[in-house]
Amino acid sequence: MEGYKTFLVFLVSTLLLGFLGVIFTLVWVLHWREGLGWDGGAAEFNWHPVLVTSGFIFIQGIAIIVYRLPWTWKCSKLLMKFIHSGLHLTALVFTIVALVAVFDFHNAKNIPNMYSLHSWIGLTVVILYALQLVLGVSVYLLPFAPNTLRAVLMPIHVYSGLLIFTTVIATALMGITEKLIFSLKEPPYSKMPPEAIFVNTFGLLILVFGGLVVWMVTTPAWKRPREQDIKTLSPTVFSPERTEEGSTVTEKSDVELNSEAARKRILKLDEAGQRSTM
Amino acid sequence: MEGYKTFLVFLVSTLLLGFLGVIFTLVWVLHWREGLGWDGGAAEFNWHPVLVTSGFIFIQGIAIIVYRLPWTWKCSKLLMKFIHSGLHLTALVFTIVALVAVFDFHNAKNIPNMYSLHSWIGLTVVILYALQLVLGVSVYLLPFAPNTLRAVLMPIHVYSGLLIFTTVIATALMGITEKLIFSLKEPPYSKMPPEAIFVNTFGLLILVFGGLVVWMVTTPAWKRPREQDIKTLSPTVFSPERTEEGSTVTEKSDVELNSEAARKRILKLDEAGQRSTM
Repeated sequence: MEGYKTFLVFLVSTLLLGFLGVIFTLVWVLHWREGLGWDGGAAEFNWHPVLVTSGFIFIQGIAIIVYRLPWTWKCSKLLMKFIHSGLHLTALVFTIVALVAVFDFHNAKNIPNMYSLHSWIGLTVVILYALQLVLGVSVYLLPFAPNTLRAVLMPIHVYSGLLIFTTVIATALMGITEKLIFSLKEPPYSKMPPEAIFVNTFGLLILVFGGLVVWMVTTPAWKRPREQDIKTLSPTVFSPERTEEGSTVTEKSDVELNSEAARKRILKLDEAGQRSTM
Repeated sequence: MEGYKTFLVFLVSTLLLGFLGVIFTLVWVLHWREGLGWDGGAAEFNWHPVLVTSGFIFIQGIAIIVYRLPWTWKCSKLLMKFIHSGLHLTALVFTIVALVAVFDFHNAKNIPNMYSLHSWIGLTVVILYALQLVLGVSVYLLPFAPNTLRAVLMPIHVYSGLLIFTTVIATALMGITEKLIFSLKEPPYSKMPPEAIFVNTFGLLILVFGGLVVWMVTTPAWKRPREQDIKTLSPTVFSPERTEEGSTVTEKSDVELNSEAARKRILKLDEAGQRSTM
């Protein structure tokens, strides 16, 4: 892999920020708020930020970059697809419980549901996430879809996945804003009590986490090589020293390149594959 | 250009949504709020959403996709760089006035500045936008930077540009949330008065606008061809009929492809160029 050390720095930073985000939301609800519970009260609402941060943000982020881990390149693509979709399914389950928590809390307290922009975008993005998962599994995990359909849908799969992920981050930032305005009263949000500074910092953490995930998944040099390239590689290609040399995995055979038709086909495939590097 | 008709549909939808976004924010402040003025009161604050939407969102979005317009491919790259950076500079000026409006309003009303997550992320992203503009002009518009530096920095320029743009959209959604909570009192936001529905819809509009801009700028087939390719094209290549055939502009000479060294170089360039398709 090209830029292996830089990749490691990004990976460690991403994991650290995501993990810190989860810790921050736990400290927020356990230290400054009413803790966690399932009683229709504030402690039940508190599952909402905790599960969204750990599932919809952290686990989804890991699911997005999991193909980029060079140690997994020796694993079969099928296994990686199971891991990718399994992580997304886990994130979806976390998110659905997070939604149940907030609807339960609203209903118990007679607070209207679905009035805020946060709720409009949030519910839309959860539905789109479920659709993305169903479509992804149907086309890429199950063995029925033809390769041409898979190739045609890949740019849309990648784009909509990243659109959903970045929208989740934006929705979380709106949720943080709402919650701080509603819950900080004495002193209010505008007086910047320690909780406000702590939770603002938490918002910055998840924003930077999102930025790192998108960088990692859109760096072409860190993309998982194609299956046929992996098969022709010696086992040592997966070691950092070998993979840092880089270009082997993106090369095509000389025979192919000597043919004009093959050349055009390769250029076309390269172009089509550009979005899938995202 | 490949997929010319699809490109046109996306372009018209993007422009329409961006324009609608500006109209929505004007209707919001002129019909439901206190109008526009420069008196330290609410009418001065109202310049903030109007200028952010028209400048930091709409004009910045146009600046991002301006290289993708096939009618501009016959214009020199230098002219296009002037237009790209000129639009970004215009957006920055709008945004600075938008910031002055909100600080002026806060100071006149003794409302604290810079306590919310919206303000933290918002000010950071304005500073990063100014830095991005200065760096972009220094490296790509002024004639001093060597080509190697330009190539090395291009993926970062493109990534940080899109990170800034998407963060601006997220920050605007937070700002809408804040403003609706603070200003809707009788009836409150939670009772969903018409203004709440109207402004929530405005939030959806700018979110979809952002999604369309990112799609347009990350579609490899819609990327502006490289200069040397443009020079070798007949003038008819810029017409929709000709450009729909597509692949001409991405082809390399046969001479280059027959050389093993050249082949590796091309593959390397293709890979490096993938981010710049974003």
